[in-house]
Amino acid sequence: MTLKLYVDRMSQPSRALIIFCKVNGIDFEEVKIDILKRQHLSPEFRDVNPMGKVPAIVDGRFKLFESHAILIYLSCAFPGVADHWYPADLSRRAKIHSALDWHHSNLRQGAAAYVLNTTLAPVVGLPLNPVAAAEAEKILSASLLKIESFWLKGNGPFLLGGFQPSIADLSLVCELMQLELLGDQDRDRILAPYKKVQKWVESTRKAMQPHFDEVHQVLMKAKTRFQMQRSAGANTGADSRGKLTSKM
Amino acid sequence: MTLKLYVDRMSQPSRALIIFCKVNGIDFEEVKIDILKRQHLSPEFRDVNPMGKVPAIVDGRFKLFESHAILIYLSCAFPGVADHWYPADLSRRAKIHSALDWHHSNLRQGAAAYVLNTTLAPVVGLPLNPVAAAEAEKILSASLLKIESFWLKGNGPFLLGGFQPSIADLSLVCELMQLELLGDQDRDRILAPYKKVQKWVESTRKAMQPHFDEVHQVLMKAKTRFQMQRSAGANTGADSRGKLTSKM
Repeated sequence: MTLKLYVDRMSQPSRALIIFCKVNGIDFEEVKIDILKRQHLSPEFRDVNPMGKVPAIVDGRFKLFESHAILIYLSCAFPGVADHWYPADLSRRAKIHSALDWHHSNLRQGAAAYVLNTTLAPVVGLPLNPVAAAEAEKILSASLLKIESFWLKGNGPFLLGGFQPSIADLSLVCELMQLELLGDQDRDRILAPYKKVQKWVESTRKAMQPHFDEVHQVLMKAKTRFQMQRSAGANTGADSRGKLTSKM
Repeated sequence: MTLKLYVDRMSQPSRALIIFCKVNGIDFEEVKIDILKRQHLSPEFRDVNPMGKVPAIVDGRFKLFESHAILIYLSCAFPGVADHWYPADLSRRAKIHSALDWHHSNLRQGAAAYVLNTTLAPVVGLPLNPVAAAEAEKILSASLLKIESFWLKGNGPFLLGGFQPSIADLSLVCELMQLELLGDQDRDRILAPYKKVQKWVESTRKAMQPHFDEVHQVLMKAKTRFQMQRSAGANTGADSRGKLTSKM
C-alpha cells in the first residue's frame, strides 16, 4: 500500500516532507488538505490526525503526525534513504535531535509568527499585529544569529558541519523559505546580517533540486500575489496589507 | 569519565534528566547551574551550551543540549536502560517522537507560560501578566484535553497505551508537576476535568519512586514558600503575588 502524505504545500513542514520523499525516491500519494478551506478540521482528516494539523502520514495501517517524527520515521522505514539524512552514529544522530528540538522553540516560533503577523493574518481572517510581529522578529533574529554562529560553525556547508544535508537542514531551511512571502526589502533586511545562513539556504536548495524549487512553486506564486497587492496598495496610497482577504 | 548533568532542579526538564539517570542506575555528576544567580549565562556554562539553557550534558568529550535529545541519547548510550523507555521498534519509537515533538508546541507552552505569568514572574524580575496567563491557560487546557482524550486512550496507564513508562511520560509529567507552584485551588481547578491525566501523573510518579519525590523536593519547598506568601498577603489584604521577589 502506497505511503500517503496529508499535506498543504502552503505549510512549510508539508513542503519538507514532500521534498524528502521526492529526493529519496520514496513512492507516495499526496493527499491535499486545504487549510484555507478548513479541511484540516474535517472529521475525515481528524481520523488521520486528531490534532487537526498538517502534515500527517498513513503508511499501511500506521498513522503519524509531527513533521520531525515523520522525517525520522521515513529515514528509518525506507532502506534506500542515505545515512547522511539521519545518521546511525549515536553522537551525530543526537546532535540532529538537538537541532530539531531547538527549532521548535526558536526558529519556528520566530519565522512563523513574523510572517503571520506581518503578512498572512488577513488571509486566515485575523488582523495584522505589529506588536506580535515585533516580538516574533526578536526571536527570529536571535535564531538566525544562533544558526550563523553555532549550528553552521563547522567545515561543511550544512548544519553541524555536515558535507551533505540532514533532515535538520531540510526542516529548518523550509521554515526559512516562508520569508519569501514578505516584501523583498523586508526579507533582505532580516537576512542581510547572516551571510552563512544565506549560503546554507542556497546549498540546501541546490542539493535537493529540481524538487526543492518544484515544491516551492506554490509559495512563489503566493509571493507574486502579495507583491502585486502591495504594489496596488502603494499606488492607491492604501495599506494593502489589510486587504489580503482573497484566496491565496 | 563520569557523565555530567548541568541542571537546576527548579527547571522541569532538568528534573526529568536527573530522575531518568537515577531510575536507570546511570552514574552521573550533578553540576548545579543556578538560574536565579544567572549562572546559565556565564562563559563557563556557555562553553557547555552556547544557548545558555539548562539542562545540558557532557559525556566524555561529547556535549549535548535539549532535554528530549538528551533523554534519547542516554537511552541509547547506556545499555542497561530498558527498552520501554525508548523502544527499538520503529513504530513505537516514532509515536514517542511524535508525543515529544507535540509537547514542545502544546503542553510546554501552556504550562510554563501559565506558571510564569501567574506565579514565577516576580522571582525572575518580571511583572505578573494576566493577559498572557489567560492565553497560556487556553493552551494548557487544550493540551490537557488532548492528553486525556488521545495520548492516554490506550489500555495501559501510560501515554500511547503503554504498560511501562517511556521518556515521553517522564518529560510530560515533569512539565505538569510545575503546576504545584500554583495555589492548590487554582491547580485543582485546572486539573479537575482530566481524571485520566491525574491517574497518569500518579502512575508515573509511583513507577519512578523514590527518585521522583526526592528530585521534586526543591519544587515542593518552593510551593510551601509561595503558599506562605499567599497566606501572608491574604491576611494583610495585599496582593502577595506582586511581592514574590525573595530568592526561591
